[in-house]
Amino acid sequence: MKHVGLMLGGPEDLWPDQLVSDIDAPITDWVGVDRGSLRLLQQDVVPVMAIGDYDSMVPAERHRVEHAVKDMRYSVPEKDDTDSELALQAAFEDLRADEVSIFGATGGRLDHLLVNLWLMAEPRFKEYAPHVAIVDRQNLIRFFLPPAQLVFPRTEYKYVGFVNLTPVTDFTIRNAKYPLAPFASDYPVSWASNEFLGDQPIQITFSKGIIAAIYSKD
Amino acid sequence: MKHVGLMLGGPEDLWPDQLVSDIDAPITDWVGVDRGSLRLLQQDVVPVMAIGDYDSMVPAERHRVEHAVKDMRYSVPEKDDTDSELALQAAFEDLRADEVSIFGATGGRLDHLLVNLWLMAEPRFKEYAPHVAIVDRQNLIRFFLPPAQLVFPRTEYKYVGFVNLTPVTDFTIRNAKYPLAPFASDYPVSWASNEFLGDQPIQITFSKGIIAAIYSKD
Repeated sequence: MKHVGLMLGGPEDLWPDQLVSDIDAPITDWVGVDRGSLRLLQQDVVPVMAIGDYDSMVPAERHRVEHAVKDMRYSVPEKDDTDSELALQAAFEDLRADEVSIFGATGGRLDHLLVNLWLMAEPRFKEYAPHVAIVDRQNLIRFFLPPAQLVFPRTEYKYVGFVNLTPVTDFTIRNAKYPLAPFASDYPVSWASNEFLGDQPIQITFSKGIIAAIYSKD
Repeated sequence: MKHVGLMLGGPEDLWPDQLVSDIDAPITDWVGVDRGSLRLLQQDVVPVMAIGDYDSMVPAERHRVEHAVKDMRYSVPEKDDTDSELALQAAFEDLRADEVSIFGATGGRLDHLLVNLWLMAEPRFKEYAPHVAIVDRQNLIRFFLPPAQLVFPRTEYKYVGFVNLTPVTDFTIRNAKYPLAPFASDYPVSWASNEFLGDQPIQITFSKGIIAAIYSKD
């Protein structure tokens, strides 16, 4: 299985302790997004690809990345696609990833966080949504498509919150501490702080939209 | 002018250096939300109201809050309203706030962050949206309603990102480094990293939806 890790430029203190993913398979290829490439090299990880405009790096840092990474891609800030969009697309299309885990996507600037969170709401990425995780030290985000899904408990996380990234209809939550009767909304809602009932999976159903499950711990 | 500060329970290291708001008026009343009440007391600020289930506090902490705060409100976790929803409503309806600035709303658990960010997308809070700010050490969020608004530069922040919290139609950005031609979307998009042109305000227009402007700095 090809499991690609994307390292973005978010604050380092929010990374998980170890750069492992929740997906139960080792990361086989890393992609560095802008300053994330340098961070990977600093951890002795050589990304197979780097994407960015690299304008936050001093020349020596940039040279180090250019020397180490074979597949360097240069983005243009004026273009519509952000670096994280380009990286996600390259991971699935060029690297043929089966699964992608995204690190360094949270903290710091909230406009960046929302770019990353909302990637999966874009129609062009929808088919990939079930194969993407966003990971930081306190949170793990997975994405779900209609009509029905099982959300499995993970021992490291006490809470699970559900959010509709897009308008949602007939959304129900069953087999959870706080069940939800069928719900429809044109605007986003964050049903925070739900909990699993022992080791049973939570059942969610919905007829349109995309739901993110945010596992978290205090 | 009555300017209410809400102190939520997010990680302290993301608070701004000083508990002042971007709104150019001193905070006249504080409301502590759950653990936020204790934090205010630790800074010698006595909130006029505290809201929460307080279950994250040890008894001594809870007694300290109950002793100091006259208007104690006890929320029930099973209820639909979150503590931050209750606090926002109380600030405008019971305390008759003209403006509300929210601190401690970011970082930590992402399901909590999204509850706070998406408060303003709720129809019942819409009328208050232009009078609310979310503040942390790197970000300041303001909310805008149709049809047209001026977004003014703030010297402390280099960047401004625009996000549609709800479906948006005819959204345009003018007089900015990256203008946006009329855009419509049913799903959320984060136009990150825009910049002001000198001290001119950015002009945004849209015919429905709610837009958040996220001012940020590196």
